[in-house]
Parts: sequence; C-alpha cells; structure tokens
Amino acid sequence: MTEHTPPTTPAREAGSTPTAAELGAASAPPSDPPRRGLSRRALFGLAGAGAAGLAAGAGATAAITAAVSAPASATGVTTVYPFGGAHQSGITTPAQDRLHFAAYDVSAGTTREELIELLQDWSVAAARMTQGQEVADGGAVDGSPLAPPVDTGEALGLPASGLTITFGFGPTLFTAEDGTDRFGIADRRPAELEKLPRFTGDNLQAGLTGGDLCIQACADDPQVAVHAIRNLSRIAFGRASIRWSQLGFGRTSSTSTSQVTPRNLFGFKDGTANVKSEETKTVEEQVWVQDGDSAAWLSGGSYLVVRKIRMIIETWDRAQLQEQERVIGRSKGEGAPLSGGKEFTEPDFDAVGATDQPLIDKHSHVRLAHPTQLKGTKLLRRGYNFVDGNDDLGRLNAGLFFMSYQRSPKQFIDVQRALATDAMNEYIKHVGAAIFAVPPGASKDGWVGETLFA
Amino acid sequence: MTEHTPPTTPAREAGSTPTAAELGAASAPPSDPPRRGLSRRALFGLAGAGAAGLAAGAGATAAITAAVSAPASATGVTTVYPFGGAHQSGITTPAQDRLHFAAYDVSAGTTREELIELLQDWSVAAARMTQGQEVADGGAVDGSPLAPPVDTGEALGLPASGLTITFGFGPTLFTAEDGTDRFGIADRRPAELEKLPRFTGDNLQAGLTGGDLCIQACADDPQVAVHAIRNLSRIAFGRASIRWSQLGFGRTSSTSTSQVTPRNLFGFKDGTANVKSEETKTVEEQVWVQDGDSAAWLSGGSYLVVRKIRMIIETWDRAQLQEQERVIGRSKGEGAPLSGGKEFTEPDFDAVGATDQPLIDKHSHVRLAHPTQLKGTKLLRRGYNFVDGNDDLGRLNAGLFFMSYQRSPKQFIDVQRALATDAMNEYIKHVGAAIFAVPPGASKDGWVGETLFA
Repeated sequence: MTEHTPPTTPAREAGSTPTAAELGAASAPPSDPPRRGLSRRALFGLAGAGAAGLAAGAGATAAITAAVSAPASATGVTTVYPFGGAHQSGITTPAQDRLHFAAYDVSAGTTREELIELLQDWSVAAARMTQGQEVADGGAVDGSPLAPPVDTGEALGLPASGLTITFGFGPTLFTAEDGTDRFGIADRRPAELEKLPRFTGDNLQAGLTGGDLCIQACADDPQVAVHAIRNLSRIAFGRASIRWSQLGFGRTSSTSTSQVTPRNLFGFKDGTANVKSEETKTVEEQVWVQDGDSAAWLSGGSYLVVRKIRMIIETWDRAQLQEQERVIGRSKGEGAPLSGGKEFTEPDFDAVGATDQPLIDKHSHVRLAHPTQLKGTKLLRRGYNFVDGNDDLGRLNAGLFFMSYQRSPKQFIDVQRALATDAMNEYIKHVGAAIFAVPPGASKDGWVGETLFA
Repeated sequence: MTEHTPPTTPAREAGSTPTAAELGAASAPPSDPPRRGLSRRALFGLAGAGAAGLAAGAGATAAITAAVSAPASATGVTTVYPFGGAHQSGITTPAQDRLHFAAYDVSAGTTREELIELLQDWSVAAARMTQGQEVADGGAVDGSPLAPPVDTGEALGLPASGLTITFGFGPTLFTAEDGTDRFGIADRRPAELEKLPRFTGDNLQAGLTGGDLCIQACADDPQVAVHAIRNLSRIAFGRASIRWSQLGFGRTSSTSTSQVTPRNLFGFKDGTANVKSEETKTVEEQVWVQDGDSAAWLSGGSYLVVRKIRMIIETWDRAQLQEQERVIGRSKGEGAPLSGGKEFTEPDFDAVGATDQPLIDKHSHVRLAHPTQLKGTKLLRRGYNFVDGNDDLGRLNAGLFFMSYQRSPKQFIDVQRALATDAMNEYIKHVGAAIFAVPPGASKDGWVGETLFA
C-alpha cells in the first residue's frame, strides 16, 4: 500500500529528462534503467513520419519506465503516485479533487496486435505523466520543428499534481455487440463482466453508456487531468477514439481516513460509511479480485461501475429541510444519522420516535444502502460532482458522477436493486452507465493488460 | 488596491455568525453593524411562506454587510477578497483558478422595482459568500425543518477560497430586443454598450450569446464558484433565469506580476503582455471607466467582453512545432518572442532572418494583438480554459473562454478587427459572445447597480 504515502517531486520542466533517482525508482538500478518508448505506430499517428525518429528507443526494448513499481522520493513540492504495482493507482489512492474520465471505442479494423501495442503505448505515456513528465522526453518543445510536438504542452511547468491514470476493459472489448471476437479474448471474459441490468428509474442515454476501454484520470489540478486524457486520446489515434467523457470536481466520497468527508451537490456529506483504503481487510474482501475468483488474469484488479446521475437540483432545493434529511437519513449539518450521535456514529435502524415511527425512514438512502441491510456488501465509491452548464430551461445540468470499485459487479447490482425504493429517486435520474474490468497494475517490465493477453 | 493583499479567514461553519471583526470591517463600528437581509420576495421564492421569517431583518434597514468595503483580517487559512469598494472585485484581482460564469435573462413581467430588489438581494448574498459565509445566517441547516434551506449547503465547511462575484449589465437590460424600455433605463445606456459587431470568422450560436445580466464567479475551488452561481440563480427565481453559462479552469492570463504566466490549451504561455493590476496607471487608462466617459453612473466600472472560442484541438495537435510557433509568434517552451530573448523581452517586429523574412510572422497572433501595433490599445484579459466533454466524433470540445475588461468596448473591437488575418484563425472558432457594462463596486451601505438606478 505504498501508494498511500504521498511523496513529492518538483514541477516538470520543458525538455527535462528525469533521472531514475528522480523517478524514485527504489527497485531500479541506479544507472539508466531500460525504457520502453512509444511505438512507431503511436509516433506516426501523433506526428507523421518526420517525428518517428524523435524518441530514442521508440518501439525498442521492453521494460516500462522505472516509475512503474515504486513511489517517488520526497524531494519536491507535489504529490506523486506510482503508476504500476500490484494494483493500479487511482482506486484506493486518496481521492484527488478533479476527474477527467473517458470511455473509448476501439476503431474498426484494429487488430489484436495493434490493441496490445495501444495498451503498451498508453502504459508508457501514463507511467511518465503520473511522474510529472511529458509523454516523451522533450516531447512538447524539443522535437523537430518540422514535426508536430509529441506532447501537447499545456502541462509544462505543472507538477504531477497527484495524477493517477487507471485503465479498464468493457464487456464489448471481449465480445462486440454483434458477437464478434475481434481480439481473440472472448473466452477470457469474466462471466460477471456483462452489461449492467436495467434498474428501476434508469433513463440512460446512448451517448453516455458503454465503451470498450476506459481511462480515469484524477489529479489535484484539472489541467493535468485534461492533459492526460488529451494526450492518451492522441496516442490512440487510428486505434481508439473517445465514445463519451466526463469532467468532475470536488470528490464526493472519502477513500481514506485522512480525508474530511466532502459534500455532494445535495449539500450533504457523502461517503461517511465508504470503504477506506486503511481498512486493509475490507479492501481485500470487497475491492480486489482474488485468486480463485472468476478470471485469473484479473486477480489484483477490480470492477469499476460508473453511473452519471443527474440531480434535479431545483426540485431538491425547494424541498423542506426535514424532507431532505428524511431522504438522506442523516442531518444536513453534522451528517449524523437521524437516530442520533455524530457523523461516524453507527445508524440505529430500530430506533423509533414518539409516534413509533422509525427515526431513520424505511426509504432513506442511508438505510437502503447500508452494509447491515445488504449482508455486509460494501463498495469503494470514488465519485465526483459535475456541472455541465445548464439546460434549455436555465436549470443547472448537474449531479453526481458515481464511480465505485468492487470485487464483483454483483455488489453494485445488489446495492442498486436495494435502492429501487430509495426516497432519493424522486430527485435524481440515472442518465449514463458503464462497467469495466480493471486489470491489476503493470509489473516492472510490463504494461496494463499484460495478464489478459499473456 | 487593497484587494491585492490576500487576507485569510477560517472556513465557514454550519450556522456560524461571523462578527464584524471576522468580516474584517475596518471601517465598520465594532458593535453589530446594520445589515440588509434578503428581501421577502427572495425568501419567498427560495423557501415558500414558511421561511419568510427566517432571516432577521429581512427586507429591513439598508446598509449592506460590513464585508463591502474592507479586506478581511489575516487570521485564518484562505484568501478572502472584499465584495464592495470603488471597483468590483474579480477584475484586477489576481486571477483565481476556477470560473463559473452565467448570463441571465430578466423574466417577463419583472418590474423596475423587482429588478432593483434582485440586485440588492444579489449584493447581500454575494457580500456574504465572498466572505466565506452562507447566503443567510444558518441558511443551510438551522432554519425551520418545515422550510427549504435558504442556502443549498454544498459549501459548508469550505473556506471562502478567494471567491469573487462580479456583476454586469447587458445592452438588452436597457433596451430589449424589441425596443422596449422595460425598466426605465433606456436613456442611461452608454452609447458604447451595444451588441458586438460581427467579426471575420464568427460562428456564434444563439445559446451562447447575449444576456440581460451576467455574473462572473471566480474561486480557487470549483465547488465554491458553483455554489455561488447556484445560490444566486435560486435567489433570482421568478425574476431572472440563466440564459447560458460556462465553467472554466486554469486561468489563461496572469493579471498580477505575482503570478506565473500559465499555458492555454494550445500549450503556449498566454497573457505575457497582459495588463497587470500592479500597473496602476495603465489600469486607470485602459480598464476603468473614468469621469467624463460616456456614462457617469459607470465611472469606476468597466466593460466586459466574453467570447467562447472553441479550439480545433486535433488540427492544432497535428501542426508542426514550427507552424505552431509561427502562428503564436513565440517559442513554445520559454514563450520568448521569435525575435529572440526571454519571455518578457519585448518583441522586435522589425527583426528579419537570413532570408529577409520577418522573424515574427506578419500574421502571428503576438504581432497583430500587440499594443504597439494598435496605437497602445490594451485589454485586461481574464480568460479560462474549458473542456465541455467531447463532440460526436470523439474530439474534445475544448478551448478558451475569453474574457477581457476594458474602459471602452472600442478597445476590444479594435483588437479583434486587427486579428482578422490572424494565422490562429485556422485553429479556432468563435462560438459565443456577449458584452456587459460592469458597474463600480457597491458602496458601504449600497449595492451593485445603485448608481444606475439612482
């Protein structure tokens, strides 16, 4: 769990070449570790033939950067998380403040080999960017003047800003909608990885659902998260393109006991009872796929469910405080359960008031979603608030971009089915949804997805 | 220029009532300064009849909060800017990192008196929120359980975060599109305040243009900026509603010499030659409307031009580094003019290279927009990057939300006309536009707009 110690590094500089020591490569040899560069295909797609010679070692020796497996050293000014390791970063990592999420479709005609190369290229670039480096050394400004820059440059001078980049594989990567096994991996699809069932109240829009691949970029600076998605999308040129995407802010769930519980756009604290990364036993049981679960290649990975949930803000804002608290099952100020106590007091679902009515309503969100009501089922939630401007009626187009990680999709499905009678449903609308298998982290000489294609 | 000293205060707490001293009311009496509350109309609109008695002094004595005219004291943890004063904050204030901008239309049937009351209500709420307070004391959680909360609550526990709230009046507030003088102020419209002319390459969308009123909320935390626009929109219920809006991040222009020049989404430093708030003589000449300019009520105010400029990111990203630098007229890494030197070296537009071609291209952005090419005309730019997800082709819907403040709209018009042959035009598309007169700041006992309606 080394990723929970936020080490720091100085800001990237135009054209600088970090040393292995700067990368904090505790396990790397001190002299010049082998580095994989971007593939020729990636460079060609980015830049045309003129730039294909830019990155030394392009498409050459294997071995991903030393950034993969070790935390960076504490010498600078910003948080840096490792890219590789047993698990991908960005799951139990203390939730950063900003999100850029993108779901991708693999382009028609892309071969298995090209898909593998894309995942390798993505891993190389992600390993570098999470360490505060450009996509390639001198990528933004030191290349040939006659070639497009390999890095788009808007993050030059910005530190790593706690960037994590997390990759996932949708069900359609294994078996396309038309049943095609495009990449020879249909038989490796975990049985549980299938399109989510329809839930009560679903109002899903085609443009906000599904995806063959996904990337979750989280950082403390939106420009750094945007830079990551933009450059990974460029690298994918001709091999995959964005299907849909979402920006978010103001994490809505703590994932670490070191974090204060934030508030969602309903104005309530959210995530009080969330799985915290420090609860190592719970994390193993509820978040990480274990040996012996349905797919061996996914061991150490997880399942990601995303749901874009629009809040009917204006209706909520006109609800009485009492109604708001009834719906949530907690007080708005302190976030205490309505059965009494403080924020972290366990709710007493049996407590009744003077009229023998339960103090925590039968249809309150806190009751229906509580592990004690769900045979202990928990999710590691990692959602963000979103505001996508306004609709034609001048209402904020805003809500919660829900993301949860769990060992099995069944956990989410059980929770979501239990919420069918949630009083909150009057104030929300699920408009987007997707599910992804999130592979384990890249090994020292590997890449994200290597266990799937091995 | 007291607003340039960032004082600090602790985070707001649920239900806390800041004292005058906490508000930093240097010029206020130490004991309980008179406060204007929200109007009965605002409270009724927010909350229904049940809450109309909540805020003591609602609609009572004049005198806006003590926050109006003085910087807060340095006792806490976050930046706080004053709300009132000779000028509105949010113009020469060092640009914060996040933006939520909204243009509003006044609702049909709203009277002059109701518009005045709206501006008074907005001023009360803005003065409070910029100081890190709720819209009304205990507004989020301490009101009647049978009434909707007066404050939506998602900023509870968050500090002021450098929030500034800046109001503007569009040409249609004075004379509606159909020529109606709805509020008896047609004769007070400054002659210069009129819809911007059409510029070469304009591709404006109706849903991204105009507005009777505007609010620019800037803060270092997006949740604080969003909370401000959301609550001001609520307060306007029945009197005005959002016409269009925009979220932005990563300021694209320094407005203070204390700030490092940031990069826009073209990956270039932006705003090197911007007017800086420390250049007090230039600010007076180029930013603030002066006595003797076209409208006396606007003296101490300014004009705001906003332009939503979509960048054709993918085309730009495939342009050669040399072409990118030619278009901008500066180097991508250092930001130095192509005539040589460092970032802040003055461009030498006469310098030529070996082939007698100018080192700074005739159509480069830096040449065409440079004050020396425009008889000294300058703008105080205060734009933000935006990413509004992606379009149907999977391309980032991203660009620059340009905002500039100037003493006269003619300054912007002259600059924009000079950019007709800007090489950058191949890579951008202007999709939104609006202009607003930005009144001076609220006086100690007044409100934003008081000089217009006096």
